[in-house]
Amino acid sequence: MRKYKGHTKLVIKPASTEEISQALKYCNDNMLAVVPQGGNTGLVGGSVPVYDEIVLSTSRINTIRSFDPVAGTLVVDAGCILESVDQFLADKGYIFPLDLGAKGSCQIGGNVATNAGGLRLLRYGSLHGNVLGLEVVLPDGTIMDDLTTLRKNNTGYDLKQLFIGGEGTLGIITGVSILCPQRSQAVNVAFFALESFEKVQHAYREAKQQLSEILSAFELMDGRSQDLVHNVTNKKRPLEGDHPFYCLIETSGSNAEHDKEKLHQFLEHVMSEEIVSDGTLADNASQMQSLWSWREGITECLGHWGGVYKYDVSIPLSDLYELVEDTRARLSSAGLVGDTNEHPVVAVVGYGHMGDSNLHLNVATRRFDKAVEEKLEPFVYEWIAKRNGSISAEHGLGLQKKPYIGYSRSETMIRLMKQIKELFDPRGIMNPYKYI
Amino acid sequence: MRKYKGHTKLVIKPASTEEISQALKYCNDNMLAVVPQGGNTGLVGGSVPVYDEIVLSTSRINTIRSFDPVAGTLVVDAGCILESVDQFLADKGYIFPLDLGAKGSCQIGGNVATNAGGLRLLRYGSLHGNVLGLEVVLPDGTIMDDLTTLRKNNTGYDLKQLFIGGEGTLGIITGVSILCPQRSQAVNVAFFALESFEKVQHAYREAKQQLSEILSAFELMDGRSQDLVHNVTNKKRPLEGDHPFYCLIETSGSNAEHDKEKLHQFLEHVMSEEIVSDGTLADNASQMQSLWSWREGITECLGHWGGVYKYDVSIPLSDLYELVEDTRARLSSAGLVGDTNEHPVVAVVGYGHMGDSNLHLNVATRRFDKAVEEKLEPFVYEWIAKRNGSISAEHGLGLQKKPYIGYSRSETMIRLMKQIKELFDPRGIMNPYKYI
Repeated sequence: MRKYKGHTKLVIKPASTEEISQALKYCNDNMLAVVPQGGNTGLVGGSVPVYDEIVLSTSRINTIRSFDPVAGTLVVDAGCILESVDQFLADKGYIFPLDLGAKGSCQIGGNVATNAGGLRLLRYGSLHGNVLGLEVVLPDGTIMDDLTTLRKNNTGYDLKQLFIGGEGTLGIITGVSILCPQRSQAVNVAFFALESFEKVQHAYREAKQQLSEILSAFELMDGRSQDLVHNVTNKKRPLEGDHPFYCLIETSGSNAEHDKEKLHQFLEHVMSEEIVSDGTLADNASQMQSLWSWREGITECLGHWGGVYKYDVSIPLSDLYELVEDTRARLSSAGLVGDTNEHPVVAVVGYGHMGDSNLHLNVATRRFDKAVEEKLEPFVYEWIAKRNGSISAEHGLGLQKKPYIGYSRSETMIRLMKQIKELFDPRGIMNPYKYI
Repeated sequence: MRKYKGHTKLVIKPASTEEISQALKYCNDNMLAVVPQGGNTGLVGGSVPVYDEIVLSTSRINTIRSFDPVAGTLVVDAGCILESVDQFLADKGYIFPLDLGAKGSCQIGGNVATNAGGLRLLRYGSLHGNVLGLEVVLPDGTIMDDLTTLRKNNTGYDLKQLFIGGEGTLGIITGVSILCPQRSQAVNVAFFALESFEKVQHAYREAKQQLSEILSAFELMDGRSQDLVHNVTNKKRPLEGDHPFYCLIETSGSNAEHDKEKLHQFLEHVMSEEIVSDGTLADNASQMQSLWSWREGITECLGHWGGVYKYDVSIPLSDLYELVEDTRARLSSAGLVGDTNEHPVVAVVGYGHMGDSNLHLNVATRRFDKAVEEKLEPFVYEWIAKRNGSISAEHGLGLQKKPYIGYSRSETMIRLMKQIKELFDPRGIMNPYKYI
């Protein structure tokens, strides 16, 4: 997003938990600020040394420590790359319960520290449920060993949860133990067009009912986002005509025939009831990839003209798309949106993880522009707060959203959070001036 | 278990969160100790006023606040009874993601406060993943409103997690928001016999692979536990002959035919490979209930002779059953086990949630006996600590296991837990002398 520029005099790359412990102890004793850094793929400036902090990279601790093929429990170093771990698991018939666009370079430690959501959350749930244990180095160098592989352990407060989504402000995650589900032998992908957001909600309800245990993704893309992908890639569109909404459904199950039957029945139902106006089903892996590219390609295509304002938000499902409409109307009526160069905004689009009520509101621009920013903020945050939504669904607070936490959290909660920060990091060396 | 005797001069039953807030504020100002009490079905003395505390019962706040039929998000008062809530959801095609023996009287608030595990955890995961938000009254009367229904909300530390399993030591949960899965239209139950614990593990691995997304329970019962159920109930046993191990498998899915086909294939496979020596499949709902009664009836039957020593523990799967064998050998060699009245111990049995590595080690006795206790503790806890297990999988610490937390948690973690307790409850009024 070209929003944050880092500068630092020192990057340290410890090779073990013990070395991280020594490094942090030194920093703590000498009041030196530290930014933990994994794959550095975050979008909110959380891992960028904007204040000349020391960068502590976890990239050299990257061993898969153990895997239990009966229980499905995996223990890895924080620096392991998500995609490598998933490939390791694929060979054993398991899957990592998290998947996201940056998988080729993001690290498990960073995923956990930012409580990454991604594409598989609908099916496998959040990291708060899947992470079984953590090894964490506290700011003073103490190693907190909570790296259990047990699925149930009711002995005291579940401290590890504070580090999941703690964005490296309480300590550095060095090891992760996680429960991995069985990998599905059969995967199917369907793509369809709908005429209104009400129909999208209806289709989602039907998919949950009819596909139930095999539904693994329900993604939403608005028509404008698909136009832009088409403009940039010039690829043949999966469906003919122009439609205001598109959805991508993925199913994953243990029996290909059963799953196909369920999916066909579902499609027949939603077509005959006119919930869906048109649809297609991938016949093979390359068609699946091609359909997914219309969802996963959005981010890259939006950057084609220049900068993109990105909002990653949670909104109760029924109001989800209204934010896009309201924002588009607001920018349009200010004369900021258009096809020619004098308009800073190319398009206002919405897409996201429908199954998680998670919308990505993106404003593609020809250039970053103060006038656009002033129209967007705090408008977007106020809009969300009014509907009890979250100003950060999965990207986190980092530097970008630190000033806005009050839109999603009460004063009482912010006070408690600050006290917890103070308790774990009394000298304030961990990722200071960010987060809360 | 007849282990804890409560006595109190005051039970208060507030009718609203506001009243709970006022009551707690008064208690805090006047340094009066409080025990929060839900359905009072716990097994470790957590909700018993053993030190003459004031009992604060949540039973009068019991309204279902809201349900979103598209997203599946439910918001309830803490005092709602689990079974009533599940029935409410059944009418809407949803299911509560937790089920346990005490469902007829336990309350949702208590379930969350004790991080109850139960029968559906294998399929739907833990409350740390499913609870979306909480409303909590802090010890000083402050109401912490984190009752969001959003599935994703990465704005600061996930404070609610501390109250999940916090056993009422940090505040009183008054409202719960939770994600409910689609209710399965088809449920099947199979029951089978196996000759060794190795075969049990093998069968579990096969079930995960072949039944994958429809597997909803994998329960273990040893032969001795089934003998006792038979002795007490005199019911016809589901399978002929005597076998050292039995397992119960439940599947839940959206298509009865598909599920039956998968289950038949699985049974054929494990029988032909001789992983399983004998098996049966329920044909209808009453047969299903009857099969389940051989698992769910164990607890009651064990109490037939007198008191029962109960250990609810997590152990890495491969070692799980060894604890039962070692404990049985230890008590037997001390001459404490036998069929006649001079022996205090009737039997040492093991059963539990195999899919969660959660064993219930139970020692059925004719009377509580010091000699038995001395053989059991700290032996059992030491045995578990050596294997990195948990001394409390799902029952919690309460009063019973407070002295033993060190077997499952490091000094660093216990120190941090105490600091968190101090932070939330500086005057120490909430369930004092229990938990950590």
